[in-house]
Order: sequence, then C-alpha cells, then structure tokens
Amino acid sequence: MSWAGARWPTRGQQLPTLRHVTVRPLPSPPERRRYVILAEGEFGELPSKTAIGVIRYGRDPVLAVIDSTRAGRNVGEWLGEGFDIPVVATLAEALPLRPTALLIGIAPPGGRLPPDWRRTILAAIDAGLDIISGLHEFVSDDPEFAAAAAVRGVELVDHRRPPAFHDVSTGRRHRPGSHVVLTVGTDCAIGKMSVALELRRAALDAGLSTSFVATGQTGIMIEGWGAAVDRLVSDFTNGTVEWLVEQGEAQGDWVFVEGQGSIDHPAYSSVTFGLIHGATPHGMVLVHEPGRLEHHGWEGRGSFLKALPETIAMHEAVAGLVRPSRVVGVALYTHRLDESAARAEIARVAAETGLTTDDPVRFGGERLFDAVRAALG
Amino acid sequence: MSWAGARWPTRGQQLPTLRHVTVRPLPSPPERRRYVILAEGEFGELPSKTAIGVIRYGRDPVLAVIDSTRAGRNVGEWLGEGFDIPVVATLAEALPLRPTALLIGIAPPGGRLPPDWRRTILAAIDAGLDIISGLHEFVSDDPEFAAAAAVRGVELVDHRRPPAFHDVSTGRRHRPGSHVVLTVGTDCAIGKMSVALELRRAALDAGLSTSFVATGQTGIMIEGWGAAVDRLVSDFTNGTVEWLVEQGEAQGDWVFVEGQGSIDHPAYSSVTFGLIHGATPHGMVLVHEPGRLEHHGWEGRGSFLKALPETIAMHEAVAGLVRPSRVVGVALYTHRLDESAARAEIARVAAETGLTTDDPVRFGGERLFDAVRAALG
Repeated sequence: MSWAGARWPTRGQQLPTLRHVTVRPLPSPPERRRYVILAEGEFGELPSKTAIGVIRYGRDPVLAVIDSTRAGRNVGEWLGEGFDIPVVATLAEALPLRPTALLIGIAPPGGRLPPDWRRTILAAIDAGLDIISGLHEFVSDDPEFAAAAAVRGVELVDHRRPPAFHDVSTGRRHRPGSHVVLTVGTDCAIGKMSVALELRRAALDAGLSTSFVATGQTGIMIEGWGAAVDRLVSDFTNGTVEWLVEQGEAQGDWVFVEGQGSIDHPAYSSVTFGLIHGATPHGMVLVHEPGRLEHHGWEGRGSFLKALPETIAMHEAVAGLVRPSRVVGVALYTHRLDESAARAEIARVAAETGLTTDDPVRFGGERLFDAVRAALG
Repeated sequence: MSWAGARWPTRGQQLPTLRHVTVRPLPSPPERRRYVILAEGEFGELPSKTAIGVIRYGRDPVLAVIDSTRAGRNVGEWLGEGFDIPVVATLAEALPLRPTALLIGIAPPGGRLPPDWRRTILAAIDAGLDIISGLHEFVSDDPEFAAAAAVRGVELVDHRRPPAFHDVSTGRRHRPGSHVVLTVGTDCAIGKMSVALELRRAALDAGLSTSFVATGQTGIMIEGWGAAVDRLVSDFTNGTVEWLVEQGEAQGDWVFVEGQGSIDHPAYSSVTFGLIHGATPHGMVLVHEPGRLEHHGWEGRGSFLKALPETIAMHEAVAGLVRPSRVVGVALYTHRLDESAARAEIARVAAETGLTTDDPVRFGGERLFDAVRAALG
C-alpha cells in the first residue's frame, strides 16, 4: 500500500510546504530493503528493542542479525517459529545473504553510537549497503561515514532527524468520527509501540479504517513515516504531535499513537507529557510489565514504578489538564511468565483496575481492541 | 562580578568539555553593551516581555526602545520613575545615543522574526551594532545577516541556541545545604522570571549566597548564562535542567530556577514538565495574575486557567511523580489592580490557599522569600 495520494488536511496558520517535510511516504515495493541488523552484544535484551521491533513488525525482510556474543543462535529462539533468521558474528558472514542495508538495531540512552561499531558501519558502506539509523547521533552528519557513502553511492538514513518545521500546538479539534488511542506505560521500553501495532492490526481485522502514528525511530522504520518526538525541540513537541495525529486521522478512523517514556520516568517524562497533551487522545491504553519494579536505566536509584490504579488516575489527571481522557484498557508484557501465570496475572490486574486486560503481543489484540472500541466507539 | 573562576562540579558519565559549552560567563565590565531595544508595535504588551525584563532586571544600560506606535512616550510610564528611557520611532533616532547593540525585545509564539523587522536589523548591522536575539529563528543562521555582520565586524548573538551536548537526566541528588526553588505558574507570560529574580534579590538582601538559573532567552540576557529550555531536544530537557541546577548550586545555597509555561498550557506543557522533573525543586512558588481566565495565546479556544488550590495540588502531584515537592508560596501579578485592590486580592488568595501570598515585583520579595525560607530552610 502506498498513501502517496492521501489527502493532507491543511490548517490556518501553518506552512503546508514545511509540514510536508516530515512525511516519509512508504517506499513502493521495488525500493524495499533487505536488512542485516547490527545488535552487537545486545540482541534479545532491552537495548535491542529496535531490532526486535523491526523484525517482528517491519515489512522489509531481515536476513541476519550481527551479535558475536550470540552467534550460531536463531531469532526464532526469541520470537518464535515464524522468525527463522540466523544470528552471525560478523558482517562478512551476512554478506552472502545479499543484504542491501545495515540497520542499527539498538536504542541506547542518549542515542550515541557505540564507538566500536564504527568499523562495522564503514565496512558495510564499503560493501555497498545503505545505513539505517535511529540514533540521536546522526550517521549522515559523520564526516567519515558521509565521505565513504558518497564514494560508494549508498544512502545514510537517520530516522530520528527531526522535522524542519517549528509550530506550536494550535488546539486543533479531532476530525469527527475519529478515535485517537495513545499507548502509555508504567515505564519506557515496555512495549507501547508493539501494543499500538497489535491494536491497529485488530482494528484492521475488524474491517475498520485505521492508522498507526509512529513517534519513535523503530516505529518510523516499521511504518515509513512519523517523527521521533524525543528528538523534537521541546517548544514544538505538543504542536508536532498534534500535527502527526492530524496526519493519522487523514488515513483512518481508528488512530493508534505510539507512546514514549512514562509520566514518572525521571529522564523522559517531558517527552511523555508532550505526547499526551499534543495527541489529546480520546482514550489511553496503559502498558505494564508484571514484575518490573524500577524504571528502566534507573535501577538502584530509587525510581520505583507506582501501583496501577494510582498510575491510571495520574494519567487521567494529567491528560485532563488539557482535555479529558480515560484509560480504557491495560496491556501486560508477560514474556517472563509461563502461559498459565500470564493468564492469572491478566485476571488479577483486570480485577485490580476494573479494566479489560490482556497481553496483545502474546495473545492477540482482539479482546483489548474490543474493549477500547466499546469504550470509545 | 565574574564567576569565570567558579568550580564546575563534574559527574560520572558526562562529557565535561561539552557540558561547559552552554555556560556563558558574565561579560566583564568593559564588554558591557549599550542597548537599543526593538519592540515595534508591542512595547508594554505581553509579547514585549523580553524588552521589559531586560530593562527592569538587566545590568547593561538601555538607551532607547523602538516602537513607532508609541514614539514620544517614555518607559517610565510603564515601569516607574527609575526607568527614564525614550520610546522612539526609528533606529535612526536612537543612533545619536551611541548604542552598541540592537536587542530584539519580543518573544512571539513560535519565535519567528517578524518579516518587516529585517530592514531594521540590517540597518543596525550597517550602523555597527551587534544584534542580540532570543528568537527560535537564529539571526546568526540568516545568510543575509551573517554576510552583513561579517563585512561590518559586528556580532550576531542567539541566546536561544541550544547547548551542544546530549545528556539524559541521571538522578543527581542536590548538593547538601542547597535549597532549590522553582517558579511555576497558572499560565505562560505571567511573571515567573521576575518572581525568581525578586526572590533572589530578597535572599541576597538577607545576606545569603544565591543564584538565579535562567531557563529562557530573557533570563539569559539578564544573567549572562543559562539555557533556553524550550529550545532543547525534548529527550534531553530533564537532563539539561538537572545540569543547570547543578551549576546554580555551585554558585550559591539558594537557587532560584526560572519557570516556563504551565503544566496545563496546551502548547507549552512539555517544557514545563521537563523543568519540574529536571529541577526536582525543594519548593515551588506559584505565579498567577488575578483576572486572567484563559491561557495566553489560546483566548477563545476553551483553555481556561484552573482554580489555585487545584493548580497547587496538581503541581505537587506531578512533581511527586519523580521527587516530592511543595508549593510554598504564591506570587500574584497585580499590575491591573490599584494598590488597595491588589492588597485585598493578596489577602484573599492567602486565605484561599493557606500560603503566604504577595506581589514581589510590586511590593518587594522579602515577605515571600521569608515564607519560602521558613518552609525550606
């Protein structure tokens, strides 16, 4: 599907030509890439969530993952039988599979490139591969990479590069008939993007018109458009999210907005608040990982996750500062529990919160979407 | 005073050389500038808050204000007898006063340069004046301005240019013995910077060691260092504010952090949350303008200010998501009321909130600071 022909709503005080800059149309099929994903030392761990997300939800084939500490294993061990992708030790081992691009598959705090990955990136450029990155440190701004890429005629793609426009929020009202759902979470790196994608899939399966609004580098790699909200100038965070939702509403009635961070994560809360107040969602779905006690990256520093009822109440209070919204479902990330324990935890949380609860990544998004639809439809 | 010799605390995972980039040392006396301030069509109105702030609190002399719609009047009509500064119609009328710099004295939403000001800026450059700007649209990135400035040998200063470092918050604890006070508000453009400066003055008068942490372009122009938090990359807002407070704590025990926006302003809330969670203040002072009902710039769009007790409770709840904090005083901006009405309103709000209330800009910051000190000291 290409939506190059989609109608772009315009609005009063903006610059439509600038606003168009952020939209990256989905590549048409001949332009699809064949990826090898660099996730050295991290595959299957939280920092490799970009790799996992692109493998699980992306449209372009992934031929191999580079992680010398897990070489010889197979992605199917982590993601299940549908994902028969070898983990190899070096780029050289992946080249016979004829990849066309090296995708940097981690999202470390601060978004910096691990220095020892430079050699692999340069080798990939020399081998004629495009470089696809979501780091804060842009590969296309690196003089050595840029020079090598120019010589070899390959592309350096920075999906986190912010849009070129500067617009504050204007208080746009949602398109009548649209339903905007934002995933929020008790922490960062807890599955908000995956839950939004599973809900979108369930809505599609129900025959509804939908869209997914990507707000992070992995979501943009998967969907082909969006903006990395953690990279925006803070004065324009709310305004850019408002605009992204407007684009989503032009594509479908059920708009699933990928959440970021959490309202109580000491490092990332500013981004999360901008999303809530910029998207002004009709409903929110709260994502939580049973057993996670401390905020990601802040373990041992006294930053504890709060109880779910308290978290739900605070999300509704914070959203209500700008426009009323409700938490209409809970998504659990139960990957550490066996199936019966997962189902028991889902039932326990449903009773604790009074909300439909499920693990949409593990058990499908239908039940949770039905609850969202009943609440908002 | 110069604090070029101040000790810079270092911390584990940062890059001190990058972190030093943002600090703009106070100019030593011979480098002080003599300003003419451009505020065409706006002087005395909210968009000219940069002009008003620099005139009222800055250390460098202001010789004239350019506003052809108010030419012939005097700044003293707005700010009182201590401010005998003419308002003139054109730059040419100000040049005989021998200014050394043109300061752009407005802060419009979105931070764009009004197109018809370009001519005045070019004329100022031709006349040998430096250009001092706090707009989002950087004057030093403008090819025409840059070329003219190079020819004439003048400086183009963009105080809103963000620091060159990228660090997320690390959960630094405050220096023992420090007291960090953040001004917050029921709206943007309501006096948060002025209140912080008046409290700092009162603390100085009480013989305490203090600092002022500038977080907006006007504050930076006044104080000589700081960072415009609304210009930061959103992922680093909390982290940069944490670092600014660390710098403030190196200068004094009573650290007054300039607030920005409001937690319920639909356009700017993301910035405000980043400030609250990045500064983790010991106490907050809430600034409000009696009679202001709707958020600045959003009049007629249904964005109403909330009652003070509710606003106070939400600030404490939001701050408490990361670290507990209390609102320890209320500052009213009573400029629209005569003195007896102002004093009555101050008494009414004190009764409503149970907090010491005053207008520190109008009546001095001593009473409010004494309350803050009693609460936190």
